[in-house]
Amino acid sequence: MRMVDLIEKKRDGQALTDEEINFIIQGYTKDEIPDYQISALAMAIYFQDMNAKERARLTMAMVESGDQLDLSSIEGIKVDKHSTGGVGDKTTIALAPLVAALGVPVAKMSGRGLGHTGGTIDKLESVPGFSVELTTNDFIQQVNQHKLAVVGQTANLTPADKKLYGLRDVTGTVNSIPLIASSVMSKKIASGADAIVLDVKVGSGAFMKEVDQANELATAMVEIGKKLGRQTVAIISDMNQPLGRTVGNALEIREAIELLKGEGPKDLHELCLELGSQMVYLAGKAKDLADAKKQIQSVIENGKAIESLKNFLEAQGGDPSVVDDTNKLPQAKHLVEVLAEKSGYVEKITADKIGTAAMKLGAGRATKDSSIDLAVGIELHKKIGDYVEAGQALATLHSNNEQVEEVKSIVKEAYTMINDKVEQNPLIYDTIH
Amino acid sequence: MRMVDLIEKKRDGQALTDEEINFIIQGYTKDEIPDYQISALAMAIYFQDMNAKERARLTMAMVESGDQLDLSSIEGIKVDKHSTGGVGDKTTIALAPLVAALGVPVAKMSGRGLGHTGGTIDKLESVPGFSVELTTNDFIQQVNQHKLAVVGQTANLTPADKKLYGLRDVTGTVNSIPLIASSVMSKKIASGADAIVLDVKVGSGAFMKEVDQANELATAMVEIGKKLGRQTVAIISDMNQPLGRTVGNALEIREAIELLKGEGPKDLHELCLELGSQMVYLAGKAKDLADAKKQIQSVIENGKAIESLKNFLEAQGGDPSVVDDTNKLPQAKHLVEVLAEKSGYVEKITADKIGTAAMKLGAGRATKDSSIDLAVGIELHKKIGDYVEAGQALATLHSNNEQVEEVKSIVKEAYTMINDKVEQNPLIYDTIH
Repeated sequence: MRMVDLIEKKRDGQALTDEEINFIIQGYTKDEIPDYQISALAMAIYFQDMNAKERARLTMAMVESGDQLDLSSIEGIKVDKHSTGGVGDKTTIALAPLVAALGVPVAKMSGRGLGHTGGTIDKLESVPGFSVELTTNDFIQQVNQHKLAVVGQTANLTPADKKLYGLRDVTGTVNSIPLIASSVMSKKIASGADAIVLDVKVGSGAFMKEVDQANELATAMVEIGKKLGRQTVAIISDMNQPLGRTVGNALEIREAIELLKGEGPKDLHELCLELGSQMVYLAGKAKDLADAKKQIQSVIENGKAIESLKNFLEAQGGDPSVVDDTNKLPQAKHLVEVLAEKSGYVEKITADKIGTAAMKLGAGRATKDSSIDLAVGIELHKKIGDYVEAGQALATLHSNNEQVEEVKSIVKEAYTMINDKVEQNPLIYDTIH
Repeated sequence: MRMVDLIEKKRDGQALTDEEINFIIQGYTKDEIPDYQISALAMAIYFQDMNAKERARLTMAMVESGDQLDLSSIEGIKVDKHSTGGVGDKTTIALAPLVAALGVPVAKMSGRGLGHTGGTIDKLESVPGFSVELTTNDFIQQVNQHKLAVVGQTANLTPADKKLYGLRDVTGTVNSIPLIASSVMSKKIASGADAIVLDVKVGSGAFMKEVDQANELATAMVEIGKKLGRQTVAIISDMNQPLGRTVGNALEIREAIELLKGEGPKDLHELCLELGSQMVYLAGKAKDLADAKKQIQSVIENGKAIESLKNFLEAQGGDPSVVDDTNKLPQAKHLVEVLAEKSGYVEKITADKIGTAAMKLGAGRATKDSSIDLAVGIELHKKIGDYVEAGQALATLHSNNEQVEEVKSIVKEAYTMINDKVEQNPLIYDTIH
């Protein structure tokens, strides 16, 4: 088999066989096929797409390129959740204890990553003492005992995907449905998921700007999951403004705790109910989605969700008392209010700008080697549809730096105000089975 | 400027600016832009094409990537000719003395290259003593004196094109009109041509299989030439069978000599008249094409073409007496006839197969480091439309090896015979101004 022939085959719109896809991914993983051939192929895929069979095979070839987590000694159906990423998305941190409290095993392997804030692991490390350095044995034992554990990506998972993603990032081939879908699904499957719930974000603060695109991606991922024997459901959710009221590591932990106490913001609460009910239902712990939602609501109300979080934090060395007193989380030295210059209704909050502002305060990593400040971030007091009087606070910056003029003006710019009342977007656009 | 943004711009169907194309080609030449970004861009160009302005700029950016031959001290309009390549194409060797005999300066820089036979230089080296190692000064002086000189590619011409071509060859991006057209035109312009005559081959033995494709390529090249101030004409000529009657280095020299003596095969003669008249006309040596054809015919008949060849060979150290006695050219030890198994009319001669057979005899290089045997090759006795009796010779193999069974059967397979008379393709399909 010659790689150039396979590039031409795809370029000419033909489907690659299982054998050909294996040849490509194995050869690339072993550095036998050079980057310049893979990037040409990726561009050909961008234009010619892949059919459902090719997408599933590409996913499995990437899974097989590295280690696969064996979670078979964990009792029950392991349901993993994945979000395509947005600003202020602390859903995992709230969801995991919620569904664990209902007996759904959550064995999560998570990353740090670049972006506006740290990843789930960084956020959890806001809790004093918390560590993700578990052996695989301890990880599995903890899930069996507490139904919940989070570990860092130590295993050599989907190396082909890592290599391919790095290449796509610099060759204009990120935005390809079959390549995005297989990348996401390969990581979930290699992490040992039996079933998968996907949160595909759409809007100005998401990678997918239009509902149609988000729908296409969601459908692609659900199809891959089904073809590979993993029950998969996707939700399309709004990311035209940050989720909830906080953007920042410790700030988001605080907000997740509030959610579990029944004091969380409406949008985060609705999204947790939606995603959580899918997880609980796929895990076979509810007779239907309505039942699952009711159960989730009850563990919020009866304190079992909070208890589940405390047990989880304690099991991984974290101080569980932060849950009762969130002031024990890292706190920034300076609180600076961003005031509205005129009165009106909030029409838009450009999520990207809020994310950039948070990163400039130090909440996220610009490069792999940057360090992040867990205490800093942004608290939004006004969201789309809210009425604001001139001089009222739109947001509060939590900063360890006194110089925040630039960040203040970015946050101010992120808000668009108008005189008329504002029709809000729905939070959930669609569910793809 | 970031390369990834330029890849995405082209991917999304937008035109690149002059500045952007310069950035890409300069960066690639200096190894500052990696192969994997250029191959992704090439694939994006394959799908999204380039407009006339981009094509011209790409051509000039490649010209500017290396040295440019300065032929300004040669009197007259320097007209270069280029063929897109076919089997048995010895046109340059016949054409150059023909037009030189009419006062058209031919200052040709030529290559060796891979393929069924050697390149023009290899063929010329069949003449004992002939050498292409001329200094630029001697080269120019010889053109001024004899109107004809051929030199090897010593200068650092279009390095960007060489690098890009090598990459395209292994990334499925060879077959792109803007990339082929700019590659050809950049070499001609860097070689100092004032005007350019192109012979675009079409048919089973050519890169372009269909007349439409060939037309598109020819139009693209003519447009680039005009945009860059070089008068350019392209002819679309048939390559559904080898050109003339011989394939092989010394054999093709012999056939070119015969042509200049008025004894050449009909198709080669017609093509030389067609291309030659365009060259003579563009050089300002004839009042119209009919006049140019008449002049070419006259130098064949009055012996001036043969004299021009002799002077040229002698000036470069070659033995001019081979022209009078072609038996002085290298001769193969074994002549083996390939006999027809049944009677009928020749319907097809797959040019590629004849080429492969010649290469297997040793006439061409399979890899850059192979040596070639100048004496060997194939002489075709029957061409499309000819009637053959069973047992008559279709072709004669000129071989230095006694084992020619495989080659014999390849040649036999190349011929398709039918019972009915055969309608011949025209030799010239079109002329693009």
